Amino acid sequence: MSVDERLNRMQIQLPEPANPVGLYKPSIIINKTLHISGQIPIVNGELKYSGKVGFDISLDEVGNAIEVSVLNAIAIAKFTLDGDLERITGVPRLRVYINSIDTFTDHATAANTASQLLLDIFGDIGIHSRSAVGVSSLPLNAPVEVELDFAINS
Amino acid sequence: MSVDERLNRMQIQLPEPANPVGLYKPSIIINKTLHISGQIPIVNGELKYSGKVGFDISLDEVGNAIEVSVLNAIAIAKFTLDGDLERITGVPRLRVYINSIDTFTDHATAANTASQLLLDIFGDIGIHSRSAVGVSSLPLNAPVEVELDFAINS
Amino acid sequence: MSVDERLNRMQIQLPEPANPVGLYKPSIIINKTLHISGQIPIVNGELKYSGKVGFDISLDEVGNAIEVSVLNAIAIAKFTLDGDLERITGVPRLRVYINSIDTFTDHATAANTASQLLLDIFGDIGIHSRSAVGVSSLPLNAPVEVELDFAINS
Repeated sequence: MSVDERLNRMQIQLPEPANPVGLYKPSIIINKTLHISGQIPIVNGELKYSGKVGFDISLDEVGNAIEVSVLNAIAIAKFTLDGDLERITGVPRLRVYINSIDTFTDHATAANTASQLLLDIFGDIGIHSRSAVGVSSLPLNAPVEVELDFAINS
Repeated sequence: MSVDERLNRMQIQLPEPANPVGLYKPSIIINKTLHISGQIPIVNGELKYSGKVGFDISLDEVGNAIEVSVLNAIAIAKFTLDGDLERITGVPRLRVYINSIDTFTDHATAANTASQLLLDIFGDIGIHSRSAVGVSSLPLNAPVEVELDFAINS
Repeated sequence: MSVDERLNRMQIQLPEPANPVGLYKPSIIINKTLHISGQIPIVNGELKYSGKVGFDISLDEVGNAIEVSVLNAIAIAKFTLDGDLERITGVPRLRVYINSIDTFTDHATAANTASQLLLDIFGDIGIHSRSAVGVSSLPLNAPVEVELDFAINS
């Protein structure tokens, strides 16, 4: 099944690729790797979720915020690859930065939302290594920032 | 001297590769790079060190926690490379995330434990670039998380 | 225009490459990528800016601190490339770690200083993806740490 077919079956419509919040590019291809700038849960130009995990925002909401961020990354990938997500051949690393209070410990549950979505959308190609850390603050008070690189076939 | 010979001489026995705490892979090989998921100081399935550096846990203990995390990463590398650590040709970057209080400043001493261990085990091949940062929280309240990529020969 | 010509026109003199604060290398070349260790605003061996953004140090000063850190990274690149910055063909990713209070939200303004400087110095080659996060502490109480990889032509 193609990535587009999986997205259709999951009834996921990728958003318009979000503009960067700053003087950088949403993505850049170098040496057969598509580097996606850190993504926060922006929807239609507005931050949909905000606040500190464990204080302002629940673990469930964080999961939703992470899904939005991952879809933003995939939307940018699709745009950069001229619509052809089949050019993606692998996901070397997923990094999830969680804007958390000091006593937060459940990074795995939060980051699993991103991992599951990658596996659901890309199948075996979505298998990845992962790092998840809690940070003291994120741009615009986002609860999460997701960083993805994609390996591509040319 | 081979990496295995160095490990023997240092009387280091690599642990069983730890299972990921989540829906991701311990490692993935893409484009001649072995990406190891972020490692925390888990021993036999249990977190051996925990807490915030500068508050719950001393700098010495953090050094031990970092060593355990690095050995976990190398154990995963060995498993992924079918037991042959000689396939490793370089260490592009070591990232050390330290779960620290706001006033912690001695990231270098802590991260040096990881750097020294890489040099002792891999010799010249273990020479690496490094980044060390303090974070507000880590999975399971781990005091450190170590992120390593290895360049491999095929 | 060459990178050196741009630096001249901007009246920027690159510093001596700073020594690492620890047992690692300032840089390493692996697979046509020049990995630069995390850079903090050290000038002549001394940390020029310190403290927590939003508490000890203003956004303007952080901008200056980031510029110093980026120039330190470029100085190391130049040294590693035997003086020839023309060997740089791209900037896959810029990571800016900001030592911030929990309520800091303006990572973009701070990190834009780094992005603008890369574009000014490298032109189109300086176009990059970016991630900016707030961290709880940094080595020596630095307000920022800048992490850069450069793609090179051989």
